[in-house]
Amino acid sequence: MAISRWTAAPARAASPRRRGAVLERAILDAALEQLSTVGWNALTMEGVAAGAQTGKAAVYRRWPSKEDLVAGALQAGLPRFEEAPDLGGVREDLLALCRQARDAMYSRPGLALRAVIHECDPAQAARFHGVIFDGVVEPVVKLLREVITRGIERGEVRPDADNGYVLDAIPAMMMYRSKVCGSEWSDAEVEEMIDLLVLPLLRPGGA
Amino acid sequence: MAISRWTAAPARAASPRRRGAVLERAILDAALEQLSTVGWNALTMEGVAAGAQTGKAAVYRRWPSKEDLVAGALQAGLPRFEEAPDLGGVREDLLALCRQARDAMYSRPGLALRAVIHECDPAQAARFHGVIFDGVVEPVVKLLREVITRGIERGEVRPDADNGYVLDAIPAMMMYRSKVCGSEWSDAEVEEMIDLLVLPLLRPGGA
Repeated sequence: MAISRWTAAPARAASPRRRGAVLERAILDAALEQLSTVGWNALTMEGVAAGAQTGKAAVYRRWPSKEDLVAGALQAGLPRFEEAPDLGGVREDLLALCRQARDAMYSRPGLALRAVIHECDPAQAARFHGVIFDGVVEPVVKLLREVITRGIERGEVRPDADNGYVLDAIPAMMMYRSKVCGSEWSDAEVEEMIDLLVLPLLRPGGA
Repeated sequence: MAISRWTAAPARAASPRRRGAVLERAILDAALEQLSTVGWNALTMEGVAAGAQTGKAAVYRRWPSKEDLVAGALQAGLPRFEEAPDLGGVREDLLALCRQARDAMYSRPGLALRAVIHECDPAQAARFHGVIFDGVVEPVVKLLREVITRGIERGEVRPDADNGYVLDAIPAMMMYRSKVCGSEWSDAEVEEMIDLLVLPLLRPGGA
């Protein structure tokens, strides 16, 4: 990495500010790598420094503790959920959004995030609650709300389905079955969940 | 405890077998107490022995490792879900069952179970997966199925609602909101979940 950087972009690499940003990125990447391989408990500042090919001091200068470093790595590495799929129908939109969430769950930052959620003790977990809530839960729920609102406008979805319990049902199922049932959410399972749970929950009419 | 036992039931207490069962119970109780107060990581065999007013050897003789002891304590202490409420309507039955599950979540064995789920690393978690699945998940899902089947027979519930995704929705929501949103599932929240999520999901008719 270091060699190709010096070779490919010597002018930018010579800037101390640029070097700082590149080093920071390498440290955050190494932290995610450690989290998704050895997990939260076994992650050490030394291990991360070694992974980033730098010294411990360079890590501690930026992040005074393991908690700070991991919070920074998650914030920088978590997938962005910025745009809701808009494929013309609520079923296709939900399928696309759930597949995107599933892919994020099994990405390196997703595995790192789950290591943090699963291994932290309650006091440490509180430290990451905001990172997870603001970085993952809120954005996903926002996109779900967009998909459902468009479904309501098209008459595909009952108007009172835009509520917090309905919006939480998909993330809740994905977390629960992955944790309790060991599901990896194949495309077929995502489709079954949409057809057997979510569409019946959203459809208009009924008693 | 020891004094009142010797006073109240000297004949039974004199039997070594009875003494063994009483001591075993005291050790398992002390393990749950430690789990629900200091958590999984801080639980030690010494601490459990001290809590049960016995020696370490008495603990190790029965459970060779911390994992074995905790699995035994959870198996012995987890609430039993044996009978589905039968109050004449699916809404009342679901409310009663969810309140029962909520009370179990916040009981001492429930807190102990959550300490194990939240703090264990993946290898340890695998060790408890069977305990949790057989002891909690399966029994709760079985009772939910009973309630929903009776609702189908009464015509309150659509016949195709008896599927694994629908049955998992309530435990999934209870775990998710407790973990991600810090919800403690007040009676009002349980009622909202039933009215805004579960009943719309179950009702017959629709598009």
